[in-house]
Amino acid sequence: MEIITTISGIRGIVKEWKREGLSIGLVPTMGYLHEGHESLIERAARENDRVIVSDFVNPIQFGENEDFSSYPRDIEMDSIISGRAGADILFCPEGSEMYKGSFSTFVDLTGPSDRLCAKSRPSHFRGVCTVVSKLFLITEPGRAYFGQKDAQQLAVIKKMVRDLNFDIEIIGCPIIREEDGLAKSSRNSYLSESERRAAAILNKALDEGKSLVESGERDCVKIIETIKQKIAQEPLMRIDYVEIVSFPEIEPMAVMDGPILAAAAVYIGKTRLIDNFIME
Amino acid sequence: MEIITTISGIRGIVKEWKREGLSIGLVPTMGYLHEGHESLIERAARENDRVIVSDFVNPIQFGENEDFSSYPRDIEMDSIISGRAGADILFCPEGSEMYKGSFSTFVDLTGPSDRLCAKSRPSHFRGVCTVVSKLFLITEPGRAYFGQKDAQQLAVIKKMVRDLNFDIEIIGCPIIREEDGLAKSSRNSYLSESERRAAAILNKALDEGKSLVESGERDCVKIIETIKQKIAQEPLMRIDYVEIVSFPEIEPMAVMDGPILAAAAVYIGKTRLIDNFIME
Repeated sequence: MEIITTISGIRGIVKEWKREGLSIGLVPTMGYLHEGHESLIERAARENDRVIVSDFVNPIQFGENEDFSSYPRDIEMDSIISGRAGADILFCPEGSEMYKGSFSTFVDLTGPSDRLCAKSRPSHFRGVCTVVSKLFLITEPGRAYFGQKDAQQLAVIKKMVRDLNFDIEIIGCPIIREEDGLAKSSRNSYLSESERRAAAILNKALDEGKSLVESGERDCVKIIETIKQKIAQEPLMRIDYVEIVSFPEIEPMAVMDGPILAAAAVYIGKTRLIDNFIME
Repeated sequence: MEIITTISGIRGIVKEWKREGLSIGLVPTMGYLHEGHESLIERAARENDRVIVSDFVNPIQFGENEDFSSYPRDIEMDSIISGRAGADILFCPEGSEMYKGSFSTFVDLTGPSDRLCAKSRPSHFRGVCTVVSKLFLITEPGRAYFGQKDAQQLAVIKKMVRDLNFDIEIIGCPIIREEDGLAKSSRNSYLSESERRAAAILNKALDEGKSLVESGERDCVKIIETIKQKIAQEPLMRIDYVEIVSFPEIEPMAVMDGPILAAAAVYIGKTRLIDNFIME
């Protein structure tokens, strides 16, 4: 596996692959790869002739008081994990390579990006859409892989791809979890031992909500209340939001009617964690 | 020359061309083609194996009280002119093909899009950047051709392409003029006979400004004043703006220092006309 740091370097390789008629899968990541990313890379390797993993902590999707500077980084480990999972290239550009001097163009959307995480992270999805557009244009993939842990991001990217006519298939992949149910996340590394133990309740709370839905409950307020009460049992946790919305439109609903996303965001100390379940 | 109205239709042809290793030139237009467009198409035909002319009056680049519904349209004549100038495809999608149902994704930038025409047309360049991004993603050209009559648009598109990493060369082409100097424009068709005669003064005024620069004048205010006074001699004309800015940054300047764009926009009756000159 090759590590590439320049856009022109990637372009040269991609052009050669295209000439040979090879299909390309892209797995966009912010690095510090875990088994969740690994599952995306493995799937991309099964479905494409060549796989590019991008590894870039994207400054413009972080708010001013968020964790951009402290976000964990380990390119060496990322290259080992990517190579093992079947990637051909790890693309790790510097910030200055992605955002030159007077950079001022943004891709933004309304609709699925208006609720949930957008409330506490107002310019987050603009940053995501912009960097993902750039990565799509640099790597020209036929397929791109995103984890369903970021379910709203998945919905936003799918909408962007449809609206702007990117000729790319967006593939959402299941959440990978720790043994106690906590969704794998690079941000789990922020947690102290006691916080890490407490974090398990997030998925357990969502599971209780899911059981309610499976047993026939359709009243969103009741399900949300159940999830919130369970989370509230853990004193280390502070709820950012628990919501049930249509999927992939991300529109509020009172009574379930069609596919839903139940999503939650919580703070444990300074760490913000998200998790969700989708039901068709 | 073939007329195509669907995105999937274009994609099929483009894919085949790419397989054959052919280069593609795109000439984005709003139709009602004149000799200005023709010169773009002819140049694209000289420099590329295949040429696509897009012919789409883009609703989202018009303001609410602008001329979207009255904008002149003549696809039949456009297809004759395009074919004669060397185009292989005229792409004329319906509005509903380009903007499906819940469309809500936009490409926008700050900097070169903040001044000049943006003052009286605040969401114009957002509409331009969005439709041009879509056309780029649909037609996958190696080169795209824009007239220098829309000099600010040219600067905006070049910035967008650089910022978002479109792998496309943007080529600006000289203004084509009527015998009396009026820049060719589809909107000239709005002018009554007397307005048409009056319109010639716009270019004459800019030419006086240009002569001043050529004779060594570097004070922008003086040059602008000269241009404005000349335009004011024509009672049918109302000035929207006359400005001298750096090019391609489109930043204000008091004393000339490096390449400049002298740009003017005027109203004659309800018709808005623009013209400019660039000096290196």
